[in-house]
Amino acid sequence: MNAHRPIALTLGDPAGIGPEIALAAWRARDAGPGLPPFFLVGDPDFIERRASEIGLQVPVAEVGPDWAVEVFPRALPVMPLPSGARVAAIAGRPDPANAGATLESITTAVDLVRSGTAAALVTNPIAKYVLTQVGFAYPGHTEFLAALAVPPGEPVPLPVMLLWSETLAVVPVTIHVALRQVPELLTGDLVTRTARIVAADLTRCFGIERPRLVLSGLNPHAGEAGTMGTEDRDVLEPAVLALQNEGIDIRGPLPADTLFHERARATYDVALCPTHDQALIPIKTLAFDEGVNVTLGLPFVRTSPDHGTAFDIAGRGIAGADSLMAALRLAARMAARCG
Amino acid sequence: MNAHRPIALTLGDPAGIGPEIALAAWRARDAGPGLPPFFLVGDPDFIERRASEIGLQVPVAEVGPDWAVEVFPRALPVMPLPSGARVAAIAGRPDPANAGATLESITTAVDLVRSGTAAALVTNPIAKYVLTQVGFAYPGHTEFLAALAVPPGEPVPLPVMLLWSETLAVVPVTIHVALRQVPELLTGDLVTRTARIVAADLTRCFGIERPRLVLSGLNPHAGEAGTMGTEDRDVLEPAVLALQNEGIDIRGPLPADTLFHERARATYDVALCPTHDQALIPIKTLAFDEGVNVTLGLPFVRTSPDHGTAFDIAGRGIAGADSLMAALRLAARMAARCG
Repeated sequence: MNAHRPIALTLGDPAGIGPEIALAAWRARDAGPGLPPFFLVGDPDFIERRASEIGLQVPVAEVGPDWAVEVFPRALPVMPLPSGARVAAIAGRPDPANAGATLESITTAVDLVRSGTAAALVTNPIAKYVLTQVGFAYPGHTEFLAALAVPPGEPVPLPVMLLWSETLAVVPVTIHVALRQVPELLTGDLVTRTARIVAADLTRCFGIERPRLVLSGLNPHAGEAGTMGTEDRDVLEPAVLALQNEGIDIRGPLPADTLFHERARATYDVALCPTHDQALIPIKTLAFDEGVNVTLGLPFVRTSPDHGTAFDIAGRGIAGADSLMAALRLAARMAARCG
Repeated sequence: MNAHRPIALTLGDPAGIGPEIALAAWRARDAGPGLPPFFLVGDPDFIERRASEIGLQVPVAEVGPDWAVEVFPRALPVMPLPSGARVAAIAGRPDPANAGATLESITTAVDLVRSGTAAALVTNPIAKYVLTQVGFAYPGHTEFLAALAVPPGEPVPLPVMLLWSETLAVVPVTIHVALRQVPELLTGDLVTRTARIVAADLTRCFGIERPRLVLSGLNPHAGEAGTMGTEDRDVLEPAVLALQNEGIDIRGPLPADTLFHERARATYDVALCPTHDQALIPIKTLAFDEGVNVTLGLPFVRTSPDHGTAFDIAGRGIAGADSLMAALRLAARMAARCG
């Protein structure tokens, strides 16, 4: 990473814990391995007010992205929204009145990372149901970023969710869909496209020369040769063979339940899983506070903390910043290679 | 438990690791907390041969169940099959010729535990596909035991699989079925019947006065109020309410991914999960070698090691007996209360 480029951090839903974990992360910027310089895209006055509401002594500096690295050691750099919009959110009270600022923070930060002004994008959590009230029509945060990643009219890339921790890295092949829909959505095409992006980005952004992938089965025991569901035999096995023929190091489909104990984890770099819970259960069991959500397949580095807006505890200054700090560190590490 | 009643251990598939882990467990009978006295139901000559093949110095004693406790300190007690059938299995080579002995060991052991001669039943792993070649028509080991648990013609009890470890206990509400079938199989009736059996047996056999149950959601994030699948809202929520109205301490449906980290585990005694993998992933991740498979809802205590026949390593003397030893200890602990 060019040490002179900061990371752009979005506001997230300002009624959630995003602002306060940004403040807490900045205060802990020198602890342990330290944090890379970052700036928040939002409303400096609002961030200052939130700091004082939760009793945090944090100097806030209004900056443009070019000064953020210089300012970072002595104040939390906050870049105002280009429209000049002010934020008046109340912690713990989600309100569609804040949706414009939430979205403008995202589009602004994406522009800065696409133009190379920022080294990477880290996003604070949003609440989709708040945004849908003002017409937000994307399935989620990640799909919105994929749409912003290319000029209008160009094919939108397939964003791939990687949940990363020092202990385990997993990719849910299907994500936020009803379990009932998974067997239809889990096509060979989806599996091969996902695995190709994972293999390429692990090399490009994580420096793993020949990444070792595994794919878990959809059915119990990976279907036991078709006796408990046919998708593993008829869809996943051919996809794995096709990927192996392309030179990708992938094994599977393997029974999901025996894939995540310590000895098994030592045999691969990332596990791809057909369902959301197959992937998220083991990483949240093993690394609840340290998981980072990474989006692969985009033309820029994007990470985010692996938790939601936590409206129930927002504004009390008790939200842990561990996952955000891990997201900032991983973003810097990735950006040094592919940012 | 009546200390004078031994535990009956079945042979399992004699081409698998069952015989050798029985031998290894007996050798380790005095290690750590010790093992309760048990006897294997099989063919003493075959067990002696297998011991010598894998180079284990284990005295084998042919016994009737009434002498097993007395013999146990100085030899592995083996009760011959009542038919006099001999076993000629070759380790690692599953063969339908052994199926008769595998099944007779099970039916004999069930008779002994039903009559009170044995304190509890511990079963070694079988391979269903070997047994189906001789007409075995049950979905699995557990359903076969449920059918044997009552006189012919009486209603067969609903067997409930509990995976137990010191770290975590889980119940898959659906088990060995294709994932595609789960949404149809997961009825309110199945959930309430399962939860009632779990709550009752945790009190009766584990001594937990008011067991705390949780139920995970079927869909990601437990469906987020019906926006990602309706089963959590329409099937699971009403079932939980009905159970609460009966006085059962149960919460849910809760997002499965955030249910298994350390802080979450401290809030319940057992987690019920709609799918096989939701339940088995976390326990095999956290307690791979120590998990015990317990069948609740039967009129006797039954446990088994939480692994399969492992034909690929059978006969090499390298199979670990930890899970079998945990199964024997837990069976004794349960039988002391409800055996």
